[in-house]
Amino acid sequence: MDILEALHTRRSIRKYTDTEISDADLHEILKCAMLAPSACNEQPWHFVAVRDEGQRKVLSGTTKYTHMAANAPLVIVVCASMQDDKAEGFWPQDCAAAIENMMLAARGLNIGAVWCGIYPVEEREAYLRKALSLPEDIVPMGMVCLGYPEQHFHEVDRFREDRIHYEKW
Amino acid sequence: MDILEALHTRRSIRKYTDTEISDADLHEILKCAMLAPSACNEQPWHFVAVRDEGQRKVLSGTTKYTHMAANAPLVIVVCASMQDDKAEGFWPQDCAAAIENMMLAARGLNIGAVWCGIYPVEEREAYLRKALSLPEDIVPMGMVCLGYPEQHFHEVDRFREDRIHYEKW
Repeated sequence: MDILEALHTRRSIRKYTDTEISDADLHEILKCAMLAPSACNEQPWHFVAVRDEGQRKVLSGTTKYTHMAANAPLVIVVCASMQDDKAEGFWPQDCAAAIENMMLAARGLNIGAVWCGIYPVEEREAYLRKALSLPEDIVPMGMVCLGYPEQHFHEVDRFREDRIHYEKW
Repeated sequence: MDILEALHTRRSIRKYTDTEISDADLHEILKCAMLAPSACNEQPWHFVAVRDEGQRKVLSGTTKYTHMAANAPLVIVVCASMQDDKAEGFWPQDCAAAIENMMLAARGLNIGAVWCGIYPVEEREAYLRKALSLPEDIVPMGMVCLGYPEQHFHEVDRFREDRIHYEKW
């Protein structure tokens, strides 16, 4: 799939078929995540890949917006290691770039995905820290639910000329 | 270009030819930025596109890492409106996803780009707020320098199996 088509048609996909995501596709998605740029090339990210049905049900209770984790064949929680954060607090941006790469790699594989925000909401972080047995210096930053879509990828137009400024504000 | 090839070969490009970036390509890059996901679909982003040589020279002084802004034919400063931040502090992640989309759209157009971190370093924000006449409720979040590359896009391998955890930590 063409990169521009992937960018134009990536949508948040919340309904999935039962088809499993292969180990090869999981590898490709995580490889692309780790190719994101990061401040000082610190690559502060870790990934917890969850396929177990019981564990996914636990994850689905993280917020009132994460119910689809129970029905997604694969959930990946993206975390950041505070030990690796030597670059003045850029780690949420680094992890966000990694997640966006995951979303687009999934689109290229015709896999649907939705990004659920975790950090900086403390109760969500605490919930996932317990559910995933995360060490204290690991921050759960975002949760991505993945599966083959039971809804269509369709293009939307969000272009807003009024958000563009030239030379200065 | 295939989406996976774009993800595999996106590199930080800091050396550019003199060739201008067309209005059509600028539009495509910003269209893709605005197609990024955002918390509650708030789309908190604004974009300041700078081509003026004098203004780019000013931007190049933002940090000791932003000298390439003086030689890039196009610099885009991505900002966030705090008025639009109703989603519990997710705006840096939203803007980071928009920037990563810009990096990949540029790659698809064979344009090189490098992402320079601004927020949360206060002196960098203050410098750009003055240089770009930004209102008080607008935060400069990141700077992207763009141009046709005078260096090669090449694939690197950053995959680290030790960063992947299964079912829990």
